[in-house]
Amino acid sequence: MEATVIITILALAQFILFGIQVGSMRARHEVKAPAVTGHEEFERMNRVHLNTMEQLVVLLPALWIHAQYANPLWGALIGLVYIVGRFVYRAEYLKDPTTRSLGFSMSFVPSVVLLIWVLVAMGLNMI
Amino acid sequence: MEATVIITILALAQFILFGIQVGSMRARHEVKAPAVTGHEEFERMNRVHLNTMEQLVVLLPALWIHAQYANPLWGALIGLVYIVGRFVYRAEYLKDPTTRSLGFSMSFVPSVVLLIWVLVAMGLNMI
Amino acid sequence: MEATVIITILALAQFILFGIQVGSMRARHEVKAPAVTGHEEFERMNRVHLNTMEQLVVLLPALWIHAQYANPLWGALIGLVYIVGRFVYRAEYLKDPTTRSLGFSMSFVPSVVLLIWVLVAMGLNMI
Repeated sequence: MEATVIITILALAQFILFGIQVGSMRARHEVKAPAVTGHEEFERMNRVHLNTMEQLVVLLPALWIHAQYANPLWGALIGLVYIVGRFVYRAEYLKDPTTRSLGFSMSFVPSVVLLIWVLVAMGLNMI
Repeated sequence: MEATVIITILALAQFILFGIQVGSMRARHEVKAPAVTGHEEFERMNRVHLNTMEQLVVLLPALWIHAQYANPLWGALIGLVYIVGRFVYRAEYLKDPTTRSLGFSMSFVPSVVLLIWVLVAMGLNMI
Repeated sequence: MEATVIITILALAQFILFGIQVGSMRARHEVKAPAVTGHEEFERMNRVHLNTMEQLVVLLPALWIHAQYANPLWGALIGLVYIVGRFVYRAEYLKDPTTRSLGFSMSFVPSVVLLIWVLVAMGLNMI
């Protein structure tokens, strides 16, 4: 499970990093709280951060269930694809939001694969 | 715990489904990222999705703590009420946001019941 | 782990409380769903709630990994700082959003400390 812990910490650290970047863009572009609109670059980074939270709340339970019922090492590798995918998503979205599909897929598909793998593993276990 | 895993996967799959529906409404109504306003139906589905995330981050920890300290099978049944409640909430909200209270309660109350049950179970354990 | 469970339930209860307060401010200031803007006090409470979710999805995994690989009692104490910090953040933000840094730090630093502690504990374990 050590690999699962490491991937979890990396995914959380990435989410924390994105949050810090939202804060610094809020300061730089003088978007006064509680507003979340007013400057395009801030809005993009804010969306990257929120979308990462949406993905994270699926990835982490999927990763840990998979570690328990399937294969922690394969789970960690799939989790690594998610993390790289999030960085790709961030780069794409900040450059041009219409090009974000590769990064989105690279972090969305890993969670789906983990969940289906768990269902298959549990199904095989029952036979 | 198998029942806990199944409910977790169903709740995550439902959240993923709602996310896909937000994306397809964004495309259909041409709400360009990073905007999250501009078309009523998109805004409603986006709120359903975000509110589901708010509920999910309470339900999953509650479900797993309850499985550990109380009763996994009852927990899974209560989790099932949450999932049905979220579909009711979605249907209500898309039709008319002012009618969303039944679906909201059906997914909010289960988490509260699970958490109180854990506290009671832990209290009885100490006696 | 009982201390970990108690802190988890308290942090979830606090998040539920903030959610209820968002709902009651929505009603009081007549901000009609799905809108999330239109009244300053509502917007502030809504931001407090969302920011708390962002912090919560980091705290809970950090707390549980720490309980497993480091020290559950110290983890619970650090989690308590997070919970107090969130109430400070809420009070500051509602009064004046520009003064929210103390409460923010009090709930942000605990998660970072927990994660670094886990990494150090795992590193020492390998020696």
